[in-house]
Amino acid sequence: MTTHVLILSARAADYAHLLRGSALPDSEVHVGTESSAVADWLDRCPIVLADPPLVRPLLPKLSALRWLQSTYAGVETLTASGLRRDYVLTNARGAFGDLMAEYVLGYLLMHERLGWQRFLAQREGRWDATWPGRLRGKTMGLVGVGSIGAEIARVAKCFALHTLGYTRASEGCPSIDRYFHGNELAAMAARCDYLVCSLPNTGASRHLVDATVLAALPSHAVLVNVGRGSTVDEAALVHALQGGWLAGAILDVFTTEPLPAGHPLWSLPNVIITSHTSALSYPEDIAPIFADNYRRFMAGETLRHVVDFEQGY
Amino acid sequence: MTTHVLILSARAADYAHLLRGSALPDSEVHVGTESSAVADWLDRCPIVLADPPLVRPLLPKLSALRWLQSTYAGVETLTASGLRRDYVLTNARGAFGDLMAEYVLGYLLMHERLGWQRFLAQREGRWDATWPGRLRGKTMGLVGVGSIGAEIARVAKCFALHTLGYTRASEGCPSIDRYFHGNELAAMAARCDYLVCSLPNTGASRHLVDATVLAALPSHAVLVNVGRGSTVDEAALVHALQGGWLAGAILDVFTTEPLPAGHPLWSLPNVIITSHTSALSYPEDIAPIFADNYRRFMAGETLRHVVDFEQGY
Repeated sequence: MTTHVLILSARAADYAHLLRGSALPDSEVHVGTESSAVADWLDRCPIVLADPPLVRPLLPKLSALRWLQSTYAGVETLTASGLRRDYVLTNARGAFGDLMAEYVLGYLLMHERLGWQRFLAQREGRWDATWPGRLRGKTMGLVGVGSIGAEIARVAKCFALHTLGYTRASEGCPSIDRYFHGNELAAMAARCDYLVCSLPNTGASRHLVDATVLAALPSHAVLVNVGRGSTVDEAALVHALQGGWLAGAILDVFTTEPLPAGHPLWSLPNVIITSHTSALSYPEDIAPIFADNYRRFMAGETLRHVVDFEQGY
Repeated sequence: MTTHVLILSARAADYAHLLRGSALPDSEVHVGTESSAVADWLDRCPIVLADPPLVRPLLPKLSALRWLQSTYAGVETLTASGLRRDYVLTNARGAFGDLMAEYVLGYLLMHERLGWQRFLAQREGRWDATWPGRLRGKTMGLVGVGSIGAEIARVAKCFALHTLGYTRASEGCPSIDRYFHGNELAAMAARCDYLVCSLPNTGASRHLVDATVLAALPSHAVLVNVGRGSTVDEAALVHALQGGWLAGAILDVFTTEPLPAGHPLWSLPNVIITSHTSALSYPEDIAPIFADNYRRFMAGETLRHVVDFEQGY
């Protein structure tokens, strides 16, 4: 019997190319960019591989849905209250750690290296011999030590950084030198040269990095956010940066994305704005996760990376 | 009996601060920035700790000199023909690997991350969501696998890069996946996404990266030079960049430094110019090397990092 699989993604063609053939035995793949064809299959596919924003408006029409594999790690689009929860939702966590680590270490190295100042000097043909800083020996605090935080910590240790981790309770990552929990986030922040947030968007993470935590950071410290914009109180961050209470921020995520025109973060000195691209869902990373879960689904086994709708991740 | 030690360095006061006291037993330290005092001590100090450019003109006056510790790794200033060689010269090799690795990985990450393009977009308030690249899975070829190349390779492996090494004969670095020797440099280059040079300035390294090697690199490859400018044929590099035969260059060293105004490398697209600052001699890194060698010198033991005047390093 043939199983119908629907793909709804901005990279649908890449997924179809990677998955058609041997990866999904006994399946027929329907690709979301072939829009006329999709409408015919919405009510007939028990399995959907989708970018959350694309599938959300179609949820009511997916009457045969049993399992939805998100191409993203963050699935708040699909766990919001009021949406159906009568299917198994799996996310792509575990696929982004290496990309996030490349982002965080790359941008922190440029901060220490005075990379932006040097880049502007070059455009003026100016030999800028200012002494740069270094990572080695600095202290990185990780707010959230899931698969992403653990990978950032692993690479941080390769550069001989000290690593602190703030978690609810877990202490299982071997790359963290010391853990903090509960009301100890400001105490951890006070010891950090860099504070790196990689939390999902949940009720518990909202504005966890608030005015108190920002004030606890040393004035030479840099905040990095690669999780979700909601973790950081942006108004408090702007206030802290304007007051010189911290030295800079490297931000890939924001409360509103794209970051609105005229927002003060665009032009504050020592703020780096990227565009929610620290860890995109590369089909070559996500397809193997889907193929593995497909095999499990067909065998009646428990899927990997099942989302708890209540917790939101 | 008191041993007189002369320090001649742009960072002399930092060295004096780090070394005075317990680090150098039975010594009296004379600091080069106290210029009137130094003239009195030039002919009385058997031990000198010095930046090579500062000590070179004073070599004829150092009549008591027995051992000179360079604060730099590169000592071509002191090994040039015609200069005295009647003393033991030690350099600071081994102290720069971590700084060089931070430079190389940081700048390659920014290349993959489209960091410069993003930085310019931010200045225009533009949300640039172009998909960036990644390091993982790429191939780095190292031209020279001494203490610097070995440390760059170690950190490259933390990012899951493939590593190739070009050496005269040595194959001792565990972080290199495959070695190349002799006339195999172009063959290695053909396999590289990044070619990283960390060679000293010697007769053997001059223009080792020539038009043939540059032509062998894939057109998407990036050249990095953190060794000495003389390793790369700069005219051939400009020609290769202008012709699109390679995608970019990250250059910390040049044939003439500072890089002269109007040199085409200043303004070629995809060329990053830094200012021979990839691994400066931080006194906190160099002082322990000097202190260790001081102890060896006083005990009559063989010093570490002795320079071969003929080989030039």
